[in-house]
Amino acid sequence: MTGRGELKYEGKAKRVYATPDANEYVVEYKDDATAFNGVKKAQIGGKGAINNAITAHLFPQLETAGVPTHFIRQLSETEQLVRAVTIIPVEVIVRNVAAGSFSKRLGVEEGTELSRPVVEYCYKSDALGDPLINTDTAVALGWATPEQLSRIRELALNVQAFLVPYFAARGVKLIDFKLEFGTLADGTVVLADEISPDTCRFWDAQTNEKMDKDRFRRDLGGVEDAYAEMLRRVTAPGANG
Amino acid sequence: MTGRGELKYEGKAKRVYATPDANEYVVEYKDDATAFNGVKKAQIGGKGAINNAITAHLFPQLETAGVPTHFIRQLSETEQLVRAVTIIPVEVIVRNVAAGSFSKRLGVEEGTELSRPVVEYCYKSDALGDPLINTDTAVALGWATPEQLSRIRELALNVQAFLVPYFAARGVKLIDFKLEFGTLADGTVVLADEISPDTCRFWDAQTNEKMDKDRFRRDLGGVEDAYAEMLRRVTAPGANG
Ligand SMILES: Nc1ncnc2c1ncn2[C@@H]1O[C@H](COP(=O)(O)OP(=O)(O)O)[C@@H](O)[C@H]1O
Ligand SMILES: Nc1ncnc2c1ncn2[C@@H]1O[C@H](COP(=O)(O)OP(=O)(O)O)[C@@H](O)[C@H]1O
Ligand SMILES: [Mg+2]
Ligand SMILES: [Mg+2]
Repeated sequence: MTGRGELKYEGKAKRVYATPDANEYVVEYKDDATAFNGVKKAQIGGKGAINNAITAHLFPQLETAGVPTHFIRQLSETEQLVRAVTIIPVEVIVRNVAAGSFSKRLGVEEGTELSRPVVEYCYKSDALGDPLINTDTAVALGWATPEQLSRIRELALNVQAFLVPYFAARGVKLIDFKLEFGTLADGTVVLADEISPDTCRFWDAQTNEKMDKDRFRRDLGGVEDAYAEMLRRVTAPGANG
Repeated sequence: MTGRGELKYEGKAKRVYATPDANEYVVEYKDDATAFNGVKKAQIGGKGAINNAITAHLFPQLETAGVPTHFIRQLSETEQLVRAVTIIPVEVIVRNVAAGSFSKRLGVEEGTELSRPVVEYCYKSDALGDPLINTDTAVALGWATPEQLSRIRELALNVQAFLVPYFAARGVKLIDFKLEFGTLADGTVVLADEISPDTCRFWDAQTNEKMDKDRFRRDLGGVEDAYAEMLRRVTAPGANG
């Protein structure tokens, strides 16, 4: 038992439950996978447990590296306890190598190394398909303040600075990743949501083999194996500990 | 005769010719109108002369207001002499009121006042349909330097600060506008291209009637009349001179 109460929100990959403490939620990770804004749907066996474990492994290390997060502790194979936040409806994507929508939109071949990390912002809206925005737009439409956005950028680049060598030490190239941030009751901006093969692109450093949700999006097969291998690598001691 | 030489470039709305001086071009404004990235095509009678005249009227005033431009002088009804620049392939859109692609992409009703001006950047590429980008992307892909982009933003906001009251004094709401910048041989960033009903959204301040290229894009009729009326208003002495 995890003391979870009322279902607050069911998303595409997780369920969020109230707890007796109004400042804490239980997040349950599901095996459900969706792509192309919900058009493609399936189950990926073991995904909920893997993504829960990967996030639970990384978030405390990010805290130590100076990034405040919503993570409190893992509760069960598929559940974790988090601080309740008000999600800022601006998804943050950090890109090291061109791939996915970026490659398509800009005609840049997938795999092209970017000369410096690119931070992109999207409006979190399933109805609109998470459209690309910029910080001016986020402020003008009241989705975030300029102060929140500079803090978000700073934290996203801190996450980038921690994750790139962390994965490199484990034989994985971090191509790009998506973050969500939220605010605590006192206004503090913290990293929320998850970091997992659902929300990152991971390529094997030797073979460039995809080890993330693109295996599902593009019907490459071996989806479960890739997720399981990523959990092994994330939790393995790297050259950097 | 305008001393124009070899055709350097023919675009959708203008032709650019060499001159005996390598630092100067002749720009000839055409009546050709295109929309939806060239899918819709027609002629708008008098458009070339009107856009040439409007640009020739505004650019010297922008110079005076501290915005360096490519404009040298008007040569004929449809031609102007400009400084040759290397165009920076980043189109700059400044928005005061939601309209067009912004409204569609973000589900914000056309006509919604923005709480502050929004500056957007697009990659100038007909092949890709001028996709939305941000400044990180422009730098990472080598389209502009961070210094050029801050200067471009500063100049775009100076143009905005000049144009909004200028048009307001002439009974016109400036909804949004698109600018192009280029560099001179010495690296100076200058405003290039044009400012006209092809590149701005103008709404009558009383009636909200559209007085710009949207009349053509949306088959509203009265296209020539709207362009002619905009020329009259631009060249009329406003409350602010
Ligand atoms: N600490 C938190 N407090 C409140 N909401 C959160 C927290 N962390 C994540 N969320 C939100 O919970 C939902 C997680 O479920 P998910 O299945 O990923 O949803 P979605 O389909 O919206 O991506 C997301 O809407 C996410 O923004
Ligand atoms: N001063 C200048 N020097 C060089 N090129 C310019 C200058 N001003 C504008 N241009 C370029 O000339 C072309 C103008 O023609 P236009 O019909 O508007 O082209 P497009 O179809 O590319 O929009 C554009 O590509 C524009 O970037
Ligand atoms: Mg999600
Ligand atoms: Mg043009």
